[in-house]
Amino acid sequence: MHGATRRGLLGATLGLAGLAAADRAAAQGQPPLTKTASLTGDRLLPFHGPNQNGIVTPVQAHTYFAAFDVTTTKLADIAALMQRWTEAAAKLTQGLPLGGDADPAQPPGDSGDVLGLPPSRLTLTFGFGPTLFTKDGVDRFGLAKHRPEAFVDLPRFVGDQLAPERTGGDLSVQACSDDPQATLHAVRQLMNLAYGAATVRWVQSGFVPGYQPDVTPRNLMGFKDGTANIPVNDPDALNRLIWVGDEGGAWMKGGTYVVVRPIRIALEHWDRMKLGFQEQTVGRHKASGAPIGATDEFAKTDLDANDEDGNPVIAENAHVRLASPETNEGAQILRRGYSYENGVAMIAERWPPWRHVLELDAGLLFVCYQRDPRTGFIKIFDRMSKFDMMNQFVTHIGGGLFICPPGVRPGRYLAQDLFEAV
Amino acid sequence: MHGATRRGLLGATLGLAGLAAADRAAAQGQPPLTKTASLTGDRLLPFHGPNQNGIVTPVQAHTYFAAFDVTTTKLADIAALMQRWTEAAAKLTQGLPLGGDADPAQPPGDSGDVLGLPPSRLTLTFGFGPTLFTKDGVDRFGLAKHRPEAFVDLPRFVGDQLAPERTGGDLSVQACSDDPQATLHAVRQLMNLAYGAATVRWVQSGFVPGYQPDVTPRNLMGFKDGTANIPVNDPDALNRLIWVGDEGGAWMKGGTYVVVRPIRIALEHWDRMKLGFQEQTVGRHKASGAPIGATDEFAKTDLDANDEDGNPVIAENAHVRLASPETNEGAQILRRGYSYENGVAMIAERWPPWRHVLELDAGLLFVCYQRDPRTGFIKIFDRMSKFDMMNQFVTHIGGGLFICPPGVRPGRYLAQDLFEAV
Repeated sequence: MHGATRRGLLGATLGLAGLAAADRAAAQGQPPLTKTASLTGDRLLPFHGPNQNGIVTPVQAHTYFAAFDVTTTKLADIAALMQRWTEAAAKLTQGLPLGGDADPAQPPGDSGDVLGLPPSRLTLTFGFGPTLFTKDGVDRFGLAKHRPEAFVDLPRFVGDQLAPERTGGDLSVQACSDDPQATLHAVRQLMNLAYGAATVRWVQSGFVPGYQPDVTPRNLMGFKDGTANIPVNDPDALNRLIWVGDEGGAWMKGGTYVVVRPIRIALEHWDRMKLGFQEQTVGRHKASGAPIGATDEFAKTDLDANDEDGNPVIAENAHVRLASPETNEGAQILRRGYSYENGVAMIAERWPPWRHVLELDAGLLFVCYQRDPRTGFIKIFDRMSKFDMMNQFVTHIGGGLFICPPGVRPGRYLAQDLFEAV
Repeated sequence: MHGATRRGLLGATLGLAGLAAADRAAAQGQPPLTKTASLTGDRLLPFHGPNQNGIVTPVQAHTYFAAFDVTTTKLADIAALMQRWTEAAAKLTQGLPLGGDADPAQPPGDSGDVLGLPPSRLTLTFGFGPTLFTKDGVDRFGLAKHRPEAFVDLPRFVGDQLAPERTGGDLSVQACSDDPQATLHAVRQLMNLAYGAATVRWVQSGFVPGYQPDVTPRNLMGFKDGTANIPVNDPDALNRLIWVGDEGGAWMKGGTYVVVRPIRIALEHWDRMKLGFQEQTVGRHKASGAPIGATDEFAKTDLDANDEDGNPVIAENAHVRLASPETNEGAQILRRGYSYENGVAMIAERWPPWRHVLELDAGLLFVCYQRDPRTGFIKIFDRMSKFDMMNQFVTHIGGGLFICPPGVRPGRYLAQDLFEAV
């Protein structure tokens, strides 16, 4: 009922329904439920385009990731949800409220908690989990034949402690913006629009500290994170490493894959480690961010250098070595992670001191994009999960792999080519 | 061991230890672990003063509240912790790292994750729970005779669903700043400094959306929150309503009391309510923030007005009526709340539709300051907890009452008068 009403109002702001509501509001002397702040172009990012936004977009200050379980058995319901989400995303990213009416006799089309808030570079990036295509061996919606070969199930990695309630999902949404309320607001509206088709499975918020634009931000371990990454202003690199070409089928050209992994860090344990040990573990100096032995953050990491004793300057099990393209036959991923904190929770460390205590449940919401997860995250993390010295302090506690369709052209909806091909 | 080392380094930045470490760092070509951003005065708030900061301070964008349980049986350990926390707070609020050394053979004195981050109006506001004075009838530390009469135990209110793991605590810290990482960073350092004396009991982060300075922010219900509040630029009002005078004993003059209550809001349920019902429940219009029947946000709330049928324009059980000074014999509190979100969690609503489902665990981290909790929060909330129409959607799930000592003079530590009086 309510979903139908809301859907009817979507896009009807300038139609009869919208005008009537605005008239009613005006008659009562109340302003309509629209934004009052002026919308400045540089704080608005486009929704439509060949690729989804929020991927090569310069990182916003806040994220809110949500995974959903589909509850319908009908493909048409999912396609209808994609239409609703697409229409909503096109408005939300442009700073426009959903609904737009102020009829006291109706639930507002929008929760209203960002009314008057300046635009904050909101992006919404959608994906589908492997289980939307095949679940327990069943082709639930007839989509299996359109599942690209690259869209494998993530293997179990050494050390994985994935909690089911924080893992997987049929649909995913990554909201990013410069305001935490705008990010939450967007996902909340999408949750409401999902009634009858999908329910939320897990969510995770995250933040990046507000460093100057030219300063690499630090993660909660206190190290600069993001010094070496795929250059997002290099179209050749993006086409080679991020955007799917013809290999994924027509519906996926210009799409990509995202791996999301909340990684809890034993921060109290880490904080007790000697500075030199921390730096050896990472393979970089803490203050400067430079590779061990160098002084410039952006100095090339010389993985072949040995010290006077003949030992490698950057340890064999140092994080930067195991993550580097040189160690992984050129494999590269676009990292777009955030720090997270979920308050305090019990932790059971799997390395000494093996404590079971109440500590910050905080760490890294690892997010990476790639053209092919088999030659991206899976290839790189397979070795890291076994050998990375940092594993003593970090635990992957959930997440998943999601296929992100290409961007949406005006008048179309997300992955319309896929739904129409079934 | 480690605590002693850290303590020794605190304040020794310019001493031999600090110089030696800096020398070692320089010898290795590495900069010391100090901030690189210039510290601009207007982003730094003073730590020392007659009252603690973070109370009448214009609200920062982020908060991180933490409650601790004391684990020592010795008053001297608590006094020593207050010294460490005071020294640390004086540095952190001024954008200075703890420790300041870069000795590879030592754990860093500071986790380092805000190195280079611009100052962000950090304030740290400390308090003590009732259980520090008397716990299970026992005067644990000889402090009971200094417990002011006003520092009562919070009664149980109608509808309270306080989870023990989110309630109470012997010590409290409210960190506020304009950057989420700076806020978390400050509390994390204080947690580390508490080793051997106290452990964290519960924490809650919060945020306020980034509206313009002259715009009242909206809470997650979509309503403006904070339109009517104690004017923080009125010294008479502050002395009458916030700052404790002679009645609390010499050690508490210039102190205050804080009530912190995380309040979960059934947002999905609320979002389904008709706009008119939402407005009647609050007693204000949603878009404008004006009292029902008015158009100006700052119009006086006329609680005596009746409509043509003789019914009150603002309902008897409307939130603004029950919260107003007129309804509470002039009682007023300084609200300083934040929105919070903790991901999704099961919710069991105690009103129809009585659902037990996975929903956003989000709402309001209610924070209020007052000179006397008996004539402040307790007086106001006693009636609200029984009659407020909003109770259908909100549930108090934890929190506590904490006594906040006065501000610290240079060379002194927090509540030193109390600890020296025992």
